[in-house]
Amino acid sequence: MINDDPTVSNPDFYHTLWENDLVRVLEYNDTPGQNTTPHNHPNSVMVTLSEFSRRLSSGEREFNVHLESGKAVWLPAQRHSGENTGDTPTHTILIELKCAAAGQASPTALGPE
Amino acid sequence: MINDDPTVSNPDFYHTLWENDLVRVLEYNDTPGQNTTPHNHPNSVMVTLSEFSRRLSSGEREFNVHLESGKAVWLPAQRHSGENTGDTPTHTILIELKCAAAGQASPTALGPE
Repeated sequence: MINDDPTVSNPDFYHTLWENDLVRVLEYNDTPGQNTTPHNHPNSVMVTLSEFSRRLSSGEREFNVHLESGKAVWLPAQRHSGENTGDTPTHTILIELKCAAAGQASPTALGPE
Repeated sequence: MINDDPTVSNPDFYHTLWENDLVRVLEYNDTPGQNTTPHNHPNSVMVTLSEFSRRLSSGEREFNVHLESGKAVWLPAQRHSGENTGDTPTHTILIELKCAAAGQASPTALGPE
């Protein structure tokens, strides 16, 4: 059975800072060249604490993203794997929404909006 | 009539980055010594993009808070005013929850948890 929770599938990169009934807050850290295995995100807000370049893959499609530090972007519910394609570490905070607000991973959603 | 929305009551400090049906994302900036007038926050996650020291006031009680940069804290629904009591600018991102998740400002809630 596949474990879709990134804190279980990719514990070297994702860890839970805290959670309550409404949100779970994760911190993500990696270094250039590192890859995650496929995992699911609920509807989330991602706040970037570093600049980074990443390639996200749904298995069928790829999405390259470059973000500056200090940005807040919407990550719609999705399943993907990621690769740090830049030359700097990735450091982000993910605010995951819970319950109905978590949404359902759509096969067409890939990367932040 | 009091306008409780900080983007209306304190537009020099709070501005809306974006919003959707589930969240509204605000950016807050000030400099040492600046004060906000009283305003309301729904249940929110605050991500700090700077270190800062602030004094929050409910009108009856005060709460002094010092946070490092890169932290994510829960701000339960509350009404307060704030003062930058440090010697550095404050820079934060606020992820406000909407609908039932927004909660109701409690007279006992003051500052982040």
